[in-house]
Amino acid sequence: MGVKLTDVAKKAGVSATTVSRVINHYGYLSQKTIDKVHKAMEELNYQPNSMARSLQGKDTQLIGLIFPTVSHPFFGELASKIETKLFEKGYKTILCDSADNKEKERDYLKMLAANKVDGIIAGAHNLGIPEYQNVELPIISFDRYLAEGIPIVSSDSYQGGRLATEHLYQRGGRKIAILTGTNESNSPTNQRLEGYLSVLKERDLEPIVYHFPPDHSPFLKSTEIRQILSRKDIDSIFCTDDLTAILVLNKAQELGLEIPGDLKVIGYDGTTFIQNYFPQLSTVLQPMDQFVDLLIDLLMKRINHANAELDKLYQLPVKFVQGQTS
Amino acid sequence: MGVKLTDVAKKAGVSATTVSRVINHYGYLSQKTIDKVHKAMEELNYQPNSMARSLQGKDTQLIGLIFPTVSHPFFGELASKIETKLFEKGYKTILCDSADNKEKERDYLKMLAANKVDGIIAGAHNLGIPEYQNVELPIISFDRYLAEGIPIVSSDSYQGGRLATEHLYQRGGRKIAILTGTNESNSPTNQRLEGYLSVLKERDLEPIVYHFPPDHSPFLKSTEIRQILSRKDIDSIFCTDDLTAILVLNKAQELGLEIPGDLKVIGYDGTTFIQNYFPQLSTVLQPMDQFVDLLIDLLMKRINHANAELDKLYQLPVKFVQGQTS
Repeated sequence: MGVKLTDVAKKAGVSATTVSRVINHYGYLSQKTIDKVHKAMEELNYQPNSMARSLQGKDTQLIGLIFPTVSHPFFGELASKIETKLFEKGYKTILCDSADNKEKERDYLKMLAANKVDGIIAGAHNLGIPEYQNVELPIISFDRYLAEGIPIVSSDSYQGGRLATEHLYQRGGRKIAILTGTNESNSPTNQRLEGYLSVLKERDLEPIVYHFPPDHSPFLKSTEIRQILSRKDIDSIFCTDDLTAILVLNKAQELGLEIPGDLKVIGYDGTTFIQNYFPQLSTVLQPMDQFVDLLIDLLMKRINHANAELDKLYQLPVKFVQGQTS
Repeated sequence: MGVKLTDVAKKAGVSATTVSRVINHYGYLSQKTIDKVHKAMEELNYQPNSMARSLQGKDTQLIGLIFPTVSHPFFGELASKIETKLFEKGYKTILCDSADNKEKERDYLKMLAANKVDGIIAGAHNLGIPEYQNVELPIISFDRYLAEGIPIVSSDSYQGGRLATEHLYQRGGRKIAILTGTNESNSPTNQRLEGYLSVLKERDLEPIVYHFPPDHSPFLKSTEIRQILSRKDIDSIFCTDDLTAILVLNKAQELGLEIPGDLKVIGYDGTTFIQNYFPQLSTVLQPMDQFVDLLIDLLMKRINHANAELDKLYQLPVKFVQGQTS
């Protein structure tokens, strides 16, 4: 057990700093150097023990990730990209699917605090979690207000709502409905509705707003969408997420509605998954890669300097993507 | 810092065992008891420190999860359910998206071993990772051969391949193609092709086999699917995953093929996501919840008894689900 980092350095013919950089995936290193160090580590059976490092008061190199669920393509993609980028920086990711379960989210925060993770990225949808106020860890929020002093990374939902609605108007839509969530959460996402309302006001059109509670199953949503479409009193629908837009397209097909002739449909999110498997869907594209970069950059700032001055809200731009449904 | 578990028990008016059970999410407890204990813990600011427990030689309560990527609906759903169930058992989940990146998977195994997680569930698609042979941790594999002595949880892919192909035959298919991956990985999944071949042989039909390498992007796959469909020399396609089936349906629509009249299509996997958002797709349903239960049960057996006698391969039954595409 007496193998030290300096033994590895000697064996590999590099400096101890270089070995440390290889272990911590830090700084520029040639593949040749990386291979040499790995080879020496293997030959000496040297294993950097992050728990041991943590005992010495150094970081455990763990980041907690709290999202509603990675079974949703948007959060699956976000979590996958965050995990990959954190790994490149030498961090491992503890996954918490809060599953819209407030007690689980609270338990998780306590467990993460007790385990002394280095930081947390949280984008859960539960409300009223006082622990966020009390947990003394660097936390960055994705798209949700969590507590005073926790910066939010988001995209320009107001502009996204405007882009989608204005596009539907330009394509001839005059009876434009919006299908969105309930406004219970104090989230920048609600601004999509505000953007929609602002365009309708400018165009002197009547808003047609449908709210779906977050606990509605896709089946229940589908049933309600079918009722809405059966009334045939709208010509356009802006869905504030792509999956709801897919349900609308499915029900429109069942009812024999022609897309976009009888009904124009626009979604929201534009994940790689949707672009690959539903390229026909018009949607508002959220900047996934920029979210990942910014969330991690801000978290690293807070990890390195607990009092780093950060903005309250970072809003990244969105893009409209024209498909064949509008 | 002197708050002890017994202080919490006293304050809550319950036994120390009950407090321990609440902390470890173990055994039956009424919501009232849970609330009382949580309240006492909060009032006393008591935090069970799992790192401290680990220093006492007890487990760290961490499980590593290695899957290709949670951005894929199948693995996203599997990871989400595993994480949720592990949490109920008092374990946290470290996520590793191996992303078909062999070096990342090797690095991860070393990091997990160094961090002394309690066990690993691995379903990655990379081959030739000698670390699986050497890592001295309880490991259970999902649907892949990893190394001697690592049990595999899988479903009956041979039967699944037979069910899909036989169904296409019964619906009138006589020129039945299969779109599948390349057979590089030593995986039970390859049995889907074997099942297909066995039915074609029994029915005295010519096999039409298309292999897609795993590094093919959905776009490249789509292009090749369009070429295959343009030849108009097949009447049925069995895709060994649902996402490929969706690409087939998209391209068939572009080419004006009628489904199922001109072309019958069957997918494979049948995730909740597919059932919710593509209810029209005929598919072979893998038993997701049973996978989760069995993976965790086997892992717990190995964690509790390192030499627990386990089978080499556990094959759960699959079901055919009739949609409107066949």
